[in-house]
Amino acid sequence: MSGRVERVRARMGELGVDALLLSLGPDLPWLTGYEGTPLERLTMLVLPADSDATLVVPRLEAPRVEPPGWVVLRPWEETEDPIGIVAGLVGAAESLAVSDQTWSRFVLALQAALPRARWRPSSLVTASLRAVKDAGEIAALRAASAAADRVAEQLLRGEIALVGRTEAEVSVDLGRRLRAEGHERVNFAIVGSGPNSASPHHEPGRRVIGRAEAVVCDFGGVFDGYCSDITRTVFTAEPPAEFRDLYLAVERAQAAAVDAATVGMPCEDVDGVARRIIDEAGYGPYFVHRTGHGIGVEAHEDPYLVGGNCEPLAAGHAFSIEPGIYLDGRWGARIEDIVVATAAGPDALNRVAHDLVVVEA
Amino acid sequence: MSGRVERVRARMGELGVDALLLSLGPDLPWLTGYEGTPLERLTMLVLPADSDATLVVPRLEAPRVEPPGWVVLRPWEETEDPIGIVAGLVGAAESLAVSDQTWSRFVLALQAALPRARWRPSSLVTASLRAVKDAGEIAALRAASAAADRVAEQLLRGEIALVGRTEAEVSVDLGRRLRAEGHERVNFAIVGSGPNSASPHHEPGRRVIGRAEAVVCDFGGVFDGYCSDITRTVFTAEPPAEFRDLYLAVERAQAAAVDAATVGMPCEDVDGVARRIIDEAGYGPYFVHRTGHGIGVEAHEDPYLVGGNCEPLAAGHAFSIEPGIYLDGRWGARIEDIVVATAAGPDALNRVAHDLVVVEA
Repeated sequence: MSGRVERVRARMGELGVDALLLSLGPDLPWLTGYEGTPLERLTMLVLPADSDATLVVPRLEAPRVEPPGWVVLRPWEETEDPIGIVAGLVGAAESLAVSDQTWSRFVLALQAALPRARWRPSSLVTASLRAVKDAGEIAALRAASAAADRVAEQLLRGEIALVGRTEAEVSVDLGRRLRAEGHERVNFAIVGSGPNSASPHHEPGRRVIGRAEAVVCDFGGVFDGYCSDITRTVFTAEPPAEFRDLYLAVERAQAAAVDAATVGMPCEDVDGVARRIIDEAGYGPYFVHRTGHGIGVEAHEDPYLVGGNCEPLAAGHAFSIEPGIYLDGRWGARIEDIVVATAAGPDALNRVAHDLVVVEA
Repeated sequence: MSGRVERVRARMGELGVDALLLSLGPDLPWLTGYEGTPLERLTMLVLPADSDATLVVPRLEAPRVEPPGWVVLRPWEETEDPIGIVAGLVGAAESLAVSDQTWSRFVLALQAALPRARWRPSSLVTASLRAVKDAGEIAALRAASAAADRVAEQLLRGEIALVGRTEAEVSVDLGRRLRAEGHERVNFAIVGSGPNSASPHHEPGRRVIGRAEAVVCDFGGVFDGYCSDITRTVFTAEPPAEFRDLYLAVERAQAAAVDAATVGMPCEDVDGVARRIIDEAGYGPYFVHRTGHGIGVEAHEDPYLVGGNCEPLAAGHAFSIEPGIYLDGRWGARIEDIVVATAAGPDALNRVAHDLVVVEA
């Protein structure tokens, strides 16, 4: 984490931000190593551009905080008003940036307490800094992806029973395996089977997985502070030609987008590469989401590979490449890997094969 | 959920709220049965006081939404601007209430798009409605507490090994048992051993639990949509007299506060009952948190049993009673049950015994 606070202060200077206010979300742990608890009790770091930072924290959380040297701890008691404490620390500062995931109730209360302040999201300061990963961060992402790969391999080898179990059971199983492979937290384990495979963010439920069905498994978590995220789609019998055709379009689009993810390529053009292949295969209207998202301490962060984002990829950008095709009520497929843009070309952190695999277990 | 939207509209009328905007947090699932995904893609229900409601939702989430009849679905595409869509639905409405946990980035963007609007937190509308549970909700809370009780009994019977395992291992074990007893989600499983038992919100870590230590276990989750939350403190050998003395003060304070939680009693007076007993036992400065919090679809909600909250308890209020004493660096203890205020007196939903139990396993 060394150097991060200096880079943050420099960027605050460029943007004319007088104070950064970090509560929930990834900016606070990225900067200080401490993650606030999502509670009605406010946790907030107040980082003025040119003086010491203070972490306002509920007293009963304070024993587990080990702030870096540049942070002063200010525990607040149950009958104190943390909004007043933060407002006092902000003082006369007027240009404020508050972390993107801060609960609205705290922002509205702070706006009332600081009527002259102008508010912007902290991502304006932090997103471009967080998006470019250093060597240590890339190593952490690589380790997280390798752990997710080990679970994906178990899936493709048929070691995770599918047929006859509910999606929810398989989802819990995937989560348990992510933990067994070293993840400290499971972010999601989507299992969409049969017609549910056509719902990209399907909530795994009581549906029992049958034979001759597509099963989309999209799972990831946090491993030593950095996120994994992988998707593989399998079929629970020899797939019909129609599904093979759809799958091949996804596979080709995914591979081409990975190849296109070179330094300097605008994000939207990487999306365009995947989209054109799927369009040309006749599935254009059924690729209903962007091609990818950045990843790091947060599961989704800058840069987003989506139409309209003309930002060029930089060395150290880490992101998913995950095109999919979804035929409503019938079936769908998605393939996802995490990729890092480097001077030597795109570096795919996930190494599990992409071929369509039959899992009859 | 029947009748909830009518009660919400009535309360909006009383408060002069023109439109309710619900994104993350418990208000949306409480009102519609649908829980938004915590993502950079906005999900938001727009409920005007006097016209139909619209749920603005990312297209890839839309397949898993089954909105009630009074909600129109408005999926948005990856290249659309959801802020503009919400602003269009709000129209000329000026007095807005936004759900308390909505991410600040969305509130700031909506404030920029709707410069004439006045913003309040949605809890102003919903908190007092959600705090009073109906018979079905009390049954759900009772079932959640009974499931948590079964895990607590396993702990007290020594079926959950403590000595020689890390706090993190025991925490995972508690979570697994909550799921095995029917919880669909684990909210937390705090395990604080030895000196960590003096940290009320301790993050279970690599510390190996030893003999002759206090172990505070505070765990809960979601069971059929409603939360459980229970704390028991055990000792891993015959406890010394000093710890017995501390524990007895907690036990007496907890029992007295439960007895005091009658309809009409101001919340802060229930807190005062527990605090006075702990004060008189000489541990006043070491009871560093409030006595309890409301519970329902959310783990912590109104009413809060804390100094300064003079709201009287009403029939149907459900809340925790959880005093604790924490001697920094040494040990601590807490006992927590969920209680419902009823016309017939306080009804404790957790039934596991409070005696100090020795777990030598």
